[in-house]
Amino acid sequence: MAKISLRDKFSEFSEHWTPKVIAEINDYQFKLVKIAGDFVWHEHEETDEAFIVIEGSMRIEFEDYPTVEISEGEMYVVPRGVRHKPCAKEECRVMLVEPKGTVNTGASPGDLTAPNDDWV
Amino acid sequence: MAKISLRDKFSEFSEHWTPKVIAEINDYQFKLVKIAGDFVWHEHEETDEAFIVIEGSMRIEFEDYPTVEISEGEMYVVPRGVRHKPCAKEECRVMLVEPKGTVNTGASPGDLTAPNDDWV
Repeated sequence: MAKISLRDKFSEFSEHWTPKVIAEINDYQFKLVKIAGDFVWHEHEETDEAFIVIEGSMRIEFEDYPTVEISEGEMYVVPRGVRHKPCAKEECRVMLVEPKGTVNTGASPGDLTAPNDDWV
Repeated sequence: MAKISLRDKFSEFSEHWTPKVIAEINDYQFKLVKIAGDFVWHEHEETDEAFIVIEGSMRIEFEDYPTVEISEGEMYVVPRGVRHKPCAKEECRVMLVEPKGTVNTGASPGDLTAPNDDWV
């Protein structure tokens, strides 16, 4: 029952591509992630995924759609099953909203697969 | 598959206490609401509710807990079943995240009950 400061939570980690859970409603989680460079192509077979840019700018590339650029104060929903690749030229701070248990690399596990349910 | 600007969406309505849906993931919705003054005491029997302050400051009063003040860049989760009253001295812009179908006045319908699933 404590309020959550996004700025404070972002200050508690520095790694890139490792989503940190900051809050939960029912079986959904709010995660903060710092991104820089290119992520891996992947899709989430079981869920849509919301990206909300808190600071900076990022791009989401798609196989069959034009690349989307989202900046601070903008959000984007990647539909379930849609293959995508997040990337950012410079460090970008993002909040993700998705069901508990969603793995960052979806159906493409690899070196960038982060621990799940990792709270900060 | 279009990006969503919170600022643009907020510019499309001026009423207070009428949440407007801007995005959906699975069966959850992201809603923007402008609040000012006092809302009604209510609880949501079936769900937790996330408040994310986008601009300004607001308070959430509780019957059995201290009042919480949340400002821009802060969020708060009201657990299911917890009776609460949102309020704001000056207009505050908030994003709510909750399951589709959640009514703004929860178990206390009245004059401030807003249309549900009202997109902007």
